[in-house]
Amino acid sequence: MTLESWQVLVQQKQAEAAASIPNAWRLPSEYTANISETANTNVLDVPRRCGILSPKQIEITENYDATALLEQIQSRKLSSYEVTEAFCIRAAIAQQVTHCLTETFFDRALQRAKELDQHLQSTGKPIGPLHGLPISLKDCFNVEGVPSTIGFTAFIENGPLKYSSPTVQILTRLGAITYVKTNIPQTMMAADSHNYVFGRTLNPHRLNLTAGGSSGGEGALIAMRGSVLGIGTDIAGSIRIPAICNGTFAMKPSADRIPYAGQTGSGRGGLPGIRACAGPLATSARDLELLMRVVTNEDTWEVDSTAIFAPWRTVTPKSTLRLGLIEEDPDFPLHPPVLRTLTQAAERLRQAGHEIVPLSVPSIRDACVLGFRMFAMDPAKTAFQNIAKSGEPTIPALASTSLPHEYMPYEYAPLTLDGLYDLHAERSSLKEQYRALITKANVDAIIMPGNAGTAQPHDLYGFPLYTALLNVLDYPATIIPFGKADQTADAAFARDVQYKPPFSPELFEGAPCCIQVVGKHMREEELVQVTQTIASVLGA
Amino acid sequence: MTLESWQVLVQQKQAEAAASIPNAWRLPSEYTANISETANTNVLDVPRRCGILSPKQIEITENYDATALLEQIQSRKLSSYEVTEAFCIRAAIAQQVTHCLTETFFDRALQRAKELDQHLQSTGKPIGPLHGLPISLKDCFNVEGVPSTIGFTAFIENGPLKYSSPTVQILTRLGAITYVKTNIPQTMMAADSHNYVFGRTLNPHRLNLTAGGSSGGEGALIAMRGSVLGIGTDIAGSIRIPAICNGTFAMKPSADRIPYAGQTGSGRGGLPGIRACAGPLATSARDLELLMRVVTNEDTWEVDSTAIFAPWRTVTPKSTLRLGLIEEDPDFPLHPPVLRTLTQAAERLRQAGHEIVPLSVPSIRDACVLGFRMFAMDPAKTAFQNIAKSGEPTIPALASTSLPHEYMPYEYAPLTLDGLYDLHAERSSLKEQYRALITKANVDAIIMPGNAGTAQPHDLYGFPLYTALLNVLDYPATIIPFGKADQTADAAFARDVQYKPPFSPELFEGAPCCIQVVGKHMREEELVQVTQTIASVLGA
Repeated sequence: MTLESWQVLVQQKQAEAAASIPNAWRLPSEYTANISETANTNVLDVPRRCGILSPKQIEITENYDATALLEQIQSRKLSSYEVTEAFCIRAAIAQQVTHCLTETFFDRALQRAKELDQHLQSTGKPIGPLHGLPISLKDCFNVEGVPSTIGFTAFIENGPLKYSSPTVQILTRLGAITYVKTNIPQTMMAADSHNYVFGRTLNPHRLNLTAGGSSGGEGALIAMRGSVLGIGTDIAGSIRIPAICNGTFAMKPSADRIPYAGQTGSGRGGLPGIRACAGPLATSARDLELLMRVVTNEDTWEVDSTAIFAPWRTVTPKSTLRLGLIEEDPDFPLHPPVLRTLTQAAERLRQAGHEIVPLSVPSIRDACVLGFRMFAMDPAKTAFQNIAKSGEPTIPALASTSLPHEYMPYEYAPLTLDGLYDLHAERSSLKEQYRALITKANVDAIIMPGNAGTAQPHDLYGFPLYTALLNVLDYPATIIPFGKADQTADAAFARDVQYKPPFSPELFEGAPCCIQVVGKHMREEELVQVTQTIASVLGA
Repeated sequence: MTLESWQVLVQQKQAEAAASIPNAWRLPSEYTANISETANTNVLDVPRRCGILSPKQIEITENYDATALLEQIQSRKLSSYEVTEAFCIRAAIAQQVTHCLTETFFDRALQRAKELDQHLQSTGKPIGPLHGLPISLKDCFNVEGVPSTIGFTAFIENGPLKYSSPTVQILTRLGAITYVKTNIPQTMMAADSHNYVFGRTLNPHRLNLTAGGSSGGEGALIAMRGSVLGIGTDIAGSIRIPAICNGTFAMKPSADRIPYAGQTGSGRGGLPGIRACAGPLATSARDLELLMRVVTNEDTWEVDSTAIFAPWRTVTPKSTLRLGLIEEDPDFPLHPPVLRTLTQAAERLRQAGHEIVPLSVPSIRDACVLGFRMFAMDPAKTAFQNIAKSGEPTIPALASTSLPHEYMPYEYAPLTLDGLYDLHAERSSLKEQYRALITKANVDAIIMPGNAGTAQPHDLYGFPLYTALLNVLDYPATIIPFGKADQTADAAFARDVQYKPPFSPELFEGAPCCIQVVGKHMREEELVQVTQTIASVLGA
């Protein structure tokens, strides 16, 4: 069989990627032989069992969140070098069982860690609040000297980039060490991180489930603890869906609070309307605050003219919360494990003395359709042109987010300027409805599901209405992992309804569950406090 | 001659407006007989001379800015009632010589002043930081129980409105007293505040010059000291042009920092791209800070889902400033009085120890054309439909901002979605160019002209490129009055260039001059400090 030209490029790219992992960090074949997207396997314990990591490296990667690691590094109980090395190795291991990485630059990272250690030793002072901390990046963030193919085989020829994205510049200035970039879906408009350059990211909880997308590599990498803090992007759920699927914490801020400019994009610049945003995935609620605080306290506009400079406000946590509850959209009934864990979370919060106020809201489905009409309106269909350029096929997951079907009616797309005005007016009206509703309910935040189900079988994630709602409204939202799918416990929550996507208990056993917490526009400060309070009540 | 139906409505409306001014506040005919748009008359001293105001009322209206009045009221040296009454009378006088008002609600205002005085007397505490201060409003701001015709005769039938705009709600909650609304151009997209409902606002410095627009009533009213603090709106210069023409202070903030929602609009909702914003006109630089601080410290989002909640930051004024200087766009050479006062301002700032750094910037004309292509893109031409509804003619000033001509090429208007994407991308690119340029120059702010000329003869203001630039970039900008056109002094600054609009020294004698000060996006705090420092150096 003759390879097509894009396949030749991909083979070469993949060979390079594989070669970038040192021999000493390669898993024995017993761990890799059965890695496949159809395997019903949990690989979370592979790093601990495989013998590549030293006991200290296991401790470093498993026993701390970013805040705690920074304390260890700053007090010189751990060196940045040993921390960075541990996460480089663990990320390499994670890659071999979940395909979560795209580019790796371990040597550079270790070199910088050494320099940061020397700086701390000689001056006694960290260079910034993220001194020595390894941070992972979604592939779309540019790093000087590293490619950003974002899963388009046509982008392979672009080669290494000459500049770093503004947020990467800020993180570096604050002392962070970037060491890996992580996998995403072709076009980044799908919930499966699958493309023909880097393959498909698998869910470490169950390889035959999706790791989510579009920041799916981040989700899998952090669940594997190959990173404790990563930066993703989100226009309909792309930071939160991987957190939902992989059981991590995550936060989508209000648009433009974290600089978004200077990334490699899959679509057309100049989209008016809903703006994608950048934000953290993490292993603790407090690390969401850490990342948001240190970045917003920088002069974000100085590096990105689209950023809203609004330094972090100090807010006092409330001891008793009044929380709105959005239970479900009747069109997309919650799967039993999601309904059970949301119900339990609300109950535990009530028992802890917080008030839960059920909210009646306009159709979430309709809000999401509005969002997707905006996403779909580029007459040039630039993202698809980027696929077509190389001759590569489209990934199967795009069938559920980018092609005409029941919930994503391309025929609604506004192909005229008139339609665009109407769409914007419709969005404004929805924002006003929610503002009035939330102000009247006088709630500190809202809890709601992150999705109708947990992680789904590959390519079946479905319509991300529960996350996209918050992009349409431009509200900040966090994900708190809480519980797992459990056939026995979930049975009582099964209903005779049409689940979309379909539900079969055995398929999802052990998949992570979560709740989504939603704040008001530009109120990230209040939201991270509420998130920490809720996480503490839930033992997350 | 038979009147058309719109003319009948207008006659009735104007009769009502005239009747709303108490007899005791009506000027003797000697003051009104020669009021006309062709008169070369300065009417600024009419309030002092006319005998209607008591000496104390003259003192109240002339000797204080808003900050000082609030101190007087809070310390009970002046009652809110006597302050409000003085400004009601003076506004009524200003109206009779400049036609600066639309709606008046003096009785309501005086009633509220009485209540506020009683509150302060009985509790010892003001209800908020604006306790008892009269504030004027551009006609587009809605006030419960008052009409907002915004100069469309078709809107007369709408009658009194049932709700107040979010910013009016906030001002009221903070203790302000609204008492008048002020005149605007038909469509609000012109620099002459002229419409067939309320007539044409005249410049009190010279009645045959424009008072500017679209917040022209505010400019004339404040110059007449019928108000010390007013709220206007600005999408291409509409807050600043009236300040330029009438010699007042003004500030256009970054979009959405002051709530803009809930106004009566002239055009179509849902315009994607450049956003209009609300902001103050005032008699002192510190009052700009006052208004910005107290409003941004409220929960602006709670009343307006489009507002960016970013509470006021306390910044320490710098003793030495590094100021960029944008001198002129070669396509629109500065008129001699503007060039002279800008040159003198720069020189005085240098002498005071501040650094002036000339900046080389991309074509300002092109940036403004980009803006007007966005303003013009509504395929339904809604603003013109609102004119057509009643059969009234368009105002002559619209020829310079809304019809095809040399600097406002309608044929550029993006009539397709593709064109809109390109326009947005072009704007983003311009914002990035300016960000890079400003960051590299490392300046605290920029000084530049507010317009090529001073106030112009009616309907000849021309292309507002020097103000619109900052809407395209979404930077905050202030106007500081500085000097007056003076044939003798200006002669040395005349050049053999093609002035647009044309320049004849005798036409502009005595017209106010100013400088425009520009800050970075979302940096209103720094900008008002710089503005106060510069105003102090310039003795403004």
